[in-house]
Amino acid sequence: MTVVNGYEQSDREEHINVLNLESLEKRAKEIIPTGGFGYIVGGSEDDWTLAQNRKAFTHKQIYPRTLANIDNPDMSTNVFGIDLKTPVMMAPLAAQGLAHSKGEVDTAKAFANEGALMAQSTYSSASIADTAAAGEGAPQFFQLYMSKDWKFNEAILDEAKKAGVKGIILTADATVDGYREADIINDFQFPIPMANLEKFSEGAGKGQGIAEIYAAAAQKISPDDVRRIAEYSDLPVIVKGIQTPEDAELAIGAGAAGIYVSNHGGRQLNGGPASFDALSAIADSVAGRVPIIFDSGVRRGSDVFKALAAGADLVALGRPFVYALALGGALGVQDAIQELNHEFATTMQLAGTKTIDEVKQSKLADFKY
Amino acid sequence: MTVVNGYEQSDREEHINVLNLESLEKRAKEIIPTGGFGYIVGGSEDDWTLAQNRKAFTHKQIYPRTLANIDNPDMSTNVFGIDLKTPVMMAPLAAQGLAHSKGEVDTAKAFANEGALMAQSTYSSASIADTAAAGEGAPQFFQLYMSKDWKFNEAILDEAKKAGVKGIILTADATVDGYREADIINDFQFPIPMANLEKFSEGAGKGQGIAEIYAAAAQKISPDDVRRIAEYSDLPVIVKGIQTPEDAELAIGAGAAGIYVSNHGGRQLNGGPASFDALSAIADSVAGRVPIIFDSGVRRGSDVFKALAAGADLVALGRPFVYALALGGALGVQDAIQELNHEFATTMQLAGTKTIDEVKQSKLADFKY
Amino acid sequence: MTVVNGYEQSDREEHINVLNLESLEKRAKEIIPTGGFGYIVGGSEDDWTLAQNRKAFTHKQIYPRTLANIDNPDMSTNVFGIDLKTPVMMAPLAAQGLAHSKGEVDTAKAFANEGALMAQSTYSSASIADTAAAGEGAPQFFQLYMSKDWKFNEAILDEAKKAGVKGIILTADATVDGYREADIINDFQFPIPMANLEKFSEGAGKGQGIAEIYAAAAQKISPDDVRRIAEYSDLPVIVKGIQTPEDAELAIGAGAAGIYVSNHGGRQLNGGPASFDALSAIADSVAGRVPIIFDSGVRRGSDVFKALAAGADLVALGRPFVYALALGGALGVQDAIQELNHEFATTMQLAGTKTIDEVKQSKLADFKY
Amino acid sequence: MTVVNGYEQSDREEHINVLNLESLEKRAKEIIPTGGFGYIVGGSEDDWTLAQNRKAFTHKQIYPRTLANIDNPDMSTNVFGIDLKTPVMMAPLAAQGLAHSKGEVDTAKAFANEGALMAQSTYSSASIADTAAAGEGAPQFFQLYMSKDWKFNEAILDEAKKAGVKGIILTADATVDGYREADIINDFQFPIPMANLEKFSEGAGKGQGIAEIYAAAAQKISPDDVRRIAEYSDLPVIVKGIQTPEDAELAIGAGAAGIYVSNHGGRQLNGGPASFDALSAIADSVAGRVPIIFDSGVRRGSDVFKALAAGADLVALGRPFVYALALGGALGVQDAIQELNHEFATTMQLAGTKTIDEVKQSKLADFKY
Repeated sequence: MTVVNGYEQSDREEHINVLNLESLEKRAKEIIPTGGFGYIVGGSEDDWTLAQNRKAFTHKQIYPRTLANIDNPDMSTNVFGIDLKTPVMMAPLAAQGLAHSKGEVDTAKAFANEGALMAQSTYSSASIADTAAAGEGAPQFFQLYMSKDWKFNEAILDEAKKAGVKGIILTADATVDGYREADIINDFQFPIPMANLEKFSEGAGKGQGIAEIYAAAAQKISPDDVRRIAEYSDLPVIVKGIQTPEDAELAIGAGAAGIYVSNHGGRQLNGGPASFDALSAIADSVAGRVPIIFDSGVRRGSDVFKALAAGADLVALGRPFVYALALGGALGVQDAIQELNHEFATTMQLAGTKTIDEVKQSKLADFKY
Repeated sequence: MTVVNGYEQSDREEHINVLNLESLEKRAKEIIPTGGFGYIVGGSEDDWTLAQNRKAFTHKQIYPRTLANIDNPDMSTNVFGIDLKTPVMMAPLAAQGLAHSKGEVDTAKAFANEGALMAQSTYSSASIADTAAAGEGAPQFFQLYMSKDWKFNEAILDEAKKAGVKGIILTADATVDGYREADIINDFQFPIPMANLEKFSEGAGKGQGIAEIYAAAAQKISPDDVRRIAEYSDLPVIVKGIQTPEDAELAIGAGAAGIYVSNHGGRQLNGGPASFDALSAIADSVAGRVPIIFDSGVRRGSDVFKALAAGADLVALGRPFVYALALGGALGVQDAIQELNHEFATTMQLAGTKTIDEVKQSKLADFKY
Repeated sequence: MTVVNGYEQSDREEHINVLNLESLEKRAKEIIPTGGFGYIVGGSEDDWTLAQNRKAFTHKQIYPRTLANIDNPDMSTNVFGIDLKTPVMMAPLAAQGLAHSKGEVDTAKAFANEGALMAQSTYSSASIADTAAAGEGAPQFFQLYMSKDWKFNEAILDEAKKAGVKGIILTADATVDGYREADIINDFQFPIPMANLEKFSEGAGKGQGIAEIYAAAAQKISPDDVRRIAEYSDLPVIVKGIQTPEDAELAIGAGAAGIYVSNHGGRQLNGGPASFDALSAIADSVAGRVPIIFDSGVRRGSDVFKALAAGADLVALGRPFVYALALGGALGVQDAIQELNHEFATTMQLAGTKTIDEVKQSKLADFKY
Repeated sequence: MTVVNGYEQSDREEHINVLNLESLEKRAKEIIPTGGFGYIVGGSEDDWTLAQNRKAFTHKQIYPRTLANIDNPDMSTNVFGIDLKTPVMMAPLAAQGLAHSKGEVDTAKAFANEGALMAQSTYSSASIADTAAAGEGAPQFFQLYMSKDWKFNEAILDEAKKAGVKGIILTADATVDGYREADIINDFQFPIPMANLEKFSEGAGKGQGIAEIYAAAAQKISPDDVRRIAEYSDLPVIVKGIQTPEDAELAIGAGAAGIYVSNHGGRQLNGGPASFDALSAIADSVAGRVPIIFDSGVRRGSDVFKALAAGADLVALGRPFVYALALGGALGVQDAIQELNHEFATTMQLAGTKTIDEVKQSKLADFKY
């Protein structure tokens, strides 16, 4: 165990049993300190949207298919010109030092080892350089919380570019902090420094509440900002937090290279629809012009399948992998990725789909349960 | 603590922590005597409509919006020609002396301090004059339980007018008392005198059950009564308890200056629809001819947003503010208003709406949960 | 307490507090012996239809109405040419001696005193003559479980006619006994003799299970039987157990004077729709040609209102009145009728309906909850 | 009790009380060892589809019918040219030695005694010959888990044919093992040898996990396989695991003599629709060209009725009969069949249906509950 500012970080590096990804939450709760766990697990207000994110996957169902004459389904895919062994990717969850002393370094290592895409948050505990190094050349995205201070934005984009990231995820749904009651109840302040904030901004990081950190972030984000970031970085920019076809159109019109359908895991606007319910209409509207990343509520291989069949190209998860990180470090995260891949491959086979393209062309049922 | 006829009134005057407005109920239950608390919290019969009032807000959802290029949303509005800092207003909940020795006086003070609209009930514990004085010129509405005795009606309207109220809310959904089981179980009689009844009627107030008080109220209320009250008072009359477009039409035809969509917080006709479900059709029918006040079930900033987007111009709450009153007097009520405003402003920002007009033009989702 | 064959019958004759009719079940359970209570309370199989009967009333909602200019709603009605003070009537629940030593005699007395319609079952504990006498000329219906033995049918119809009943309710939904698990679990046999079976058939009554009693009843019931009973008795015949427009048509075509929409309180075919859900289509099809009686799941004044608005002319309840019978004899039943009437009158007033005709013309909402 | 490899098999041979088939699960859990019980009861992943299989029967409802003039409903039917006393049949549940030392031998005996159709699994504990012998000439189907090794397939089809089976059920929905968490939690390996695997394959059977057994099974199953099996065996081939009209068409096009609508009791693809919900569209598409067998979630006589009315010709159950097998051997299974038949006959009578043809022509209601 590593103790930073009185906060006890796991430093386990070992394989873990993963019955399924949902089961990790309870186990992680036992080893992540209360404040940190509350920050990770919590949604906003009364967690209604958080709960619907999960339940919404029952709104559509996968038809089992027979006589399809397939075996050994192939999960590999190419999105944004990147070859990946699985459409499962890491969501850019912040402050992974809350779960493990190695933080994003271990997460990056695990995703690299599994041939899966890593995304790192601006508010990461580990630095861009260290996270990139851990990936050893494996593809990574960098997520930008746009600052009011453009010098900060440019400096961090420079750093990300230097580190070789393949794309920038611009978070656009967090222009103010969601009302997260768990953090209020726990009077939570970040005990672990945020490497990027320490390096590129003043006074941010250690000992700050989420509200203070958000305060430095830009409230006003416009299509022009998408353009500016794309031009400055010369990297594909993916706009994160899209929940409507209208906003997907705005983003594409501003030059976004991808759409990231997410409601921030139910942590921002409470009272909105489940992210999975919002996906189909957006995908219909985007109509393949740019790739779509999806997150919020995914826990099962069947969820991955449903998200792809509903229009996603990549499917991201955050919390479960961070729980696995706490429980076993990089090895734990790899175990979780493998379990999810195993469930997804099983689903592919039983749904009669040999390739990701066939998954994406599957018709989902929509019986009411 | 103040003891009146054996009933223990809170007389706290202090700031309170308000995690959210729903959390106040449990805390208030500990300090408001059983009979008084039962009167405030209870609905009619088995509380089915009361429960649906709350759940119905999940029937519509707010789309998070991105790239809207806004910050610092502006909650101010002008309704009935009155400038307000927030569309949140006080519902004319009766007998607030059950919660606090200062009753409506403290509530009025709090709403005035927050630039929000106060409404006082005919059955208030405090007098019209004292309540008006506490507001120090801030806008107030007076709610009328029409008596069978027109002398009473005229006297109380004179008093309200003298006090400078800006409008009369005519309650039209309580022509007989709802069947409130909590009051029967608790054998509840009002222990605290009702100042207006004491002043203007015979024998009402102290020591009476709700049934006796209602007995003095008119059962027959017609469009002609709306006209008569408007003409006598020369004030805008808002008809409260509207749940159908037909009745909105009746009220407007009779000269109502506003429509108050409410099912009396689930305290009158049990087995009716949730008030929020009834709102859209009425707003469509009213089509902006007069302003619409909405209440019944609102607890969250996202509820305020949804009510406005569904057609309301002002959004009233009763119980939560009375719980805050018990817990902290005027300061407690201000804390509750601020918390609700904070949630609402957060929702506005995350929904990409800069002004109340933009909120009102937002399109809600209607996924089924 | 009266003890018959080891079975302890209540013989209370006293007023009871009736908070609401649903609350009586729990209290009655404490004084009715287990086997008898299980027989009364139970439905068939896993009680699914029984549960839906109750829940289905939430599928439609009553609009509160304002400015209706009414007071003192009038519950009186005339159905089948009979003047009644309330549309609430007694369902022909069998074997009321299980609840009270006076059985149907006390029930009849109570309904007569309240100006409400009594219906007596073939399988009543009290005799037709005693039940009729208790009513002192008040209107009563007699319910016929048609026997395979026409001599029995004729004898019992003769007796009913002699007793002055105003109509025959022919139960058509019980041509075999529903699979009632409570009776199997309790190994329930009727401990109390059934007066009509004792008088008119061989060996039936005391000490028999429901299966044995049903075995004597006709399985084959045809439209010709409706005709035959009507011709023999020269009384209006109401066919009970109708759940489809097709069967209503069959009954009317065979000369039925009324349709009794019921699923036997969920005691016969489990897995069928809630009776209230079945009502509207039948009423639309019957279109006023004959009156409609409704039962199954009614417990509240608002349920009575909804059933009338959905097409019923009379609304019957069984179990709650038998619980009241156990708790207070005829006085208890009167208390229960008065409570239900009070709730119903309150609902009428708040829904802006002055008469039963206006109730029947009310439009119900159908929001989904 | 018989102990095999430390596993305690029931060897009860006695009548059992069967209140209903659902109640058997709890009782069987007490006598079947944990690992074996988990294997039988479990579905895949979080059992969502398993749960919906059961709940989906509430999506349609049976109309009680009156004046139908019928008695003594006739459950007999002829499907695939086989005369049967009931449309209820045994699903080809594997490894019944987990429940009882006699395994499929006792099940076959019970179904023969009740004039009902037995189906035996490739993975049965008892041999084809012993199971056939126990049936004493009564009709049986043999279920084939197609092996990658066609010599195995041919040998086992030869054996089944020699034993006189009337049809081959080709399981097509298990080309990989569902993710069954109960087996993982219990670290379950088959303790009881599988007679057919022991005889016809290498090393399979005793001491293997389900994953190892599935590994020997073919993943690729195509319409050509249906043809090949039909031609080789010269028996009717029924394709099991169909959940879409498209796959029914594929199967029929490949010469299938029947369609078996099933989702493997929720044990294969989790996240798919309830099997009952999938049935109607398939039946509409098949339109009587070949018979349809249905399973997954059936527990009640009313479920049998609904499945037939929705398009099935035969209705199979697995788990409940295996629980009955554990509790009473062949006699226990007969008791369970009789109870289900009793419930079904009751339902037929109360739904006004005299014959299976009339059941199949019944219109179901589809109110939402």
